[in-house]
Amino acid sequence: MNIEVITIGNEILYGNIVDTNFVYLAKRLAEEGYGISRHTSIPDDPEVMEQCLREALHRSEIILTTGGLGPTLDDKTKEVIAQVFGKKLILNPAVKEELIGRYGPDYSWIDHQATVPVETEILQNRVGTAPGFLFKKDKNLCFVMPGVPLEMQTMFENEVLVRLKYVLQKRQKQIVKSLYLCHLPESNVDPYLRALDTQYPHIEKGIYPGYGVLSVEFKVKESPKAQQELQACVHTIEQAFGSYLFSQEDKSLSLAVHNTLTHHKKTLALAESCTGGFIASQLVQHAGASNYFLGGIVCYSDEMKKRSLGVKAETLRTHGAVSEETVKQMLEGAFALSGADYALAVSGVLGPSGGSQEKPIGTVWCGLGIRGEAPHIGKILAKGRAKRASMIEYTTNFMLGVLWRKVVFGINTL
Amino acid sequence: MNIEVITIGNEILYGNIVDTNFVYLAKRLAEEGYGISRHTSIPDDPEVMEQCLREALHRSEIILTTGGLGPTLDDKTKEVIAQVFGKKLILNPAVKEELIGRYGPDYSWIDHQATVPVETEILQNRVGTAPGFLFKKDKNLCFVMPGVPLEMQTMFENEVLVRLKYVLQKRQKQIVKSLYLCHLPESNVDPYLRALDTQYPHIEKGIYPGYGVLSVEFKVKESPKAQQELQACVHTIEQAFGSYLFSQEDKSLSLAVHNTLTHHKKTLALAESCTGGFIASQLVQHAGASNYFLGGIVCYSDEMKKRSLGVKAETLRTHGAVSEETVKQMLEGAFALSGADYALAVSGVLGPSGGSQEKPIGTVWCGLGIRGEAPHIGKILAKGRAKRASMIEYTTNFMLGVLWRKVVFGINTL
Repeated sequence: MNIEVITIGNEILYGNIVDTNFVYLAKRLAEEGYGISRHTSIPDDPEVMEQCLREALHRSEIILTTGGLGPTLDDKTKEVIAQVFGKKLILNPAVKEELIGRYGPDYSWIDHQATVPVETEILQNRVGTAPGFLFKKDKNLCFVMPGVPLEMQTMFENEVLVRLKYVLQKRQKQIVKSLYLCHLPESNVDPYLRALDTQYPHIEKGIYPGYGVLSVEFKVKESPKAQQELQACVHTIEQAFGSYLFSQEDKSLSLAVHNTLTHHKKTLALAESCTGGFIASQLVQHAGASNYFLGGIVCYSDEMKKRSLGVKAETLRTHGAVSEETVKQMLEGAFALSGADYALAVSGVLGPSGGSQEKPIGTVWCGLGIRGEAPHIGKILAKGRAKRASMIEYTTNFMLGVLWRKVVFGINTL
Repeated sequence: MNIEVITIGNEILYGNIVDTNFVYLAKRLAEEGYGISRHTSIPDDPEVMEQCLREALHRSEIILTTGGLGPTLDDKTKEVIAQVFGKKLILNPAVKEELIGRYGPDYSWIDHQATVPVETEILQNRVGTAPGFLFKKDKNLCFVMPGVPLEMQTMFENEVLVRLKYVLQKRQKQIVKSLYLCHLPESNVDPYLRALDTQYPHIEKGIYPGYGVLSVEFKVKESPKAQQELQACVHTIEQAFGSYLFSQEDKSLSLAVHNTLTHHKKTLALAESCTGGFIASQLVQHAGASNYFLGGIVCYSDEMKKRSLGVKAETLRTHGAVSEETVKQMLEGAFALSGADYALAVSGVLGPSGGSQEKPIGTVWCGLGIRGEAPHIGKILAKGRAKRASMIEYTTNFMLGVLWRKVVFGINTL
């Protein structure tokens, strides 16, 4: 039984927004054991929409759509899908009443949003104005959801998933195992996957490099032996790369650091130059970061390095801001200001100007401090090939990996 | 002449990665005046790939694919597309020599990557190992690019675009005008678009809300009057919302702030509590940020607020960290440490715990300081409905908007 997702909206095809709705659905469906066979993005163009929907209904039993249910003039999804399924639109008094109950009677869009296809199941939108729909015809189910991410997510979790599970209960599920590793290039891990491919050819293997994070994935159809065989694959990677394997649930290294510092009740402070607050911003995404994250200094200028962290003018003059000596003093400053158990410091040159033969663009001096111990300091060449955002992401993941491996395994990377 | 994009890779359909390649291509093609009629994502499954490609070739003249050209075991794109176009794969000595020239002879993947379809144009990969291909058959062109973003981007810019332009030179282009506004809800702007829809029904209008940024888009096929009519639409929005309209090129508010501070030769410091370095991290993405951005304090704990910014213990005790008084002292601290011309400070409660009736989750005290003047301080309720990352993004865009409107128009929002 195939599941397809169709995301609708000009803004997606113009590259104006990232289609986070699809990413959310893909992730959640995979977690529930259902794979998506195809994803299509189309503009708010009735003709394209109709053609695409007809093709999808022919190919796949289950269709999920997002987008185009709003009251503004570019929203046309409801009209087109209702027509494909041969359903008229009429003003539904119950929907209207529910909208007035939440928003009051004064909005001009209420009648528009309360006009819905007849003989069609309504999916309640608890956090927005556009109801969703479940169209049924022959063996096809078509779930129609709004495009505002929070509305789509709430509707998926509360209205769509329970119906999907009911329909799919007899279907053979897929089991997916994901492994997330830091500090490793693809080429180190690929030989192990090839060896596993000989032993377990029916298990699908995937390997996906990111900036400082490598994802490995095993996927197989449910069977009596499936769990055990997947576990054997996972075990192979654990044996070979255990101290790099920071999660089997989430690819976010900041979450791994968050969990381990919370667990060990250790605190952290940061002194960021070239990453400019990005390391800190990754940590504070997680609720409860204030339990261990005391704060950081974004010492982007020499002046801030001196005034806030006490880096010596002499050091900056003699060795430069991108140097072992500066990073050492940044760590000392971070400890003095915060009283933290651990500190991370980075200072690098990310270009496009400022590179030299001695310190080419991408050079980052990295420091890990542990209170009362000598600091670990080392130099890396940030991957990302002269793209600032990529080099910042790489450096951030590298540093979070350094800290994670130290706290969990006592391993010094620098 | 339709253009379709097909992105290939299990990792996309599992929701493991965001399909940034598609976003890049959509944006670049729109900039060049070409719209994408459809985007499909499919897994590394030869059967699905073949079916999808055959459908696309039937529907559209021009196909661009990304992904699945690597040497690891899950990469199958080259084999499948070559088969669809009826081309054999053979080891190409010139490609092999070029790869050895860049990487040396010692890699096991060289022969695999140098094995390419016969009678097919090779698209050079200057920054990676996988060559791209241009398949031709009847009226179809199929550009096949690797999935590593930098390799795809480099190949698109250097190899694909010139060929596309040649083919599409006689095609009627689309002209797209985008407007990016801060501090405005969709509902304020929609009536203006509806009025324009009556006057210029053939111009497509779109309106897309984000967290703190609203995008408006006008699109029309090239014609003698098109530019002038588009300009009239733009003018309507400019007239109504000029002081909110921060860009007609880029939706990044941090870039607007970057440009205006660079232009006015003014410097900036930050004191971030609840945004945790995110405001800083947005600014430093832009090359040259060090010309105006002096640095920031991520004062996530009370201790850091006191030690690094000099916020008084008494203030924190009496008014709390999320208060007008604390934000005022954070601004003073930021000025003292940095000597900047402007400072921004934020302190809020983003939950999930810590909310109260007086300060519900989402409450953020915001401060804009101008050296030598009284600060502007105000309170907002961050949108994003209890999702930390969304509230951080909203607050960041709100603050950048406050600064931008002050520097450019002298308008106080707080």
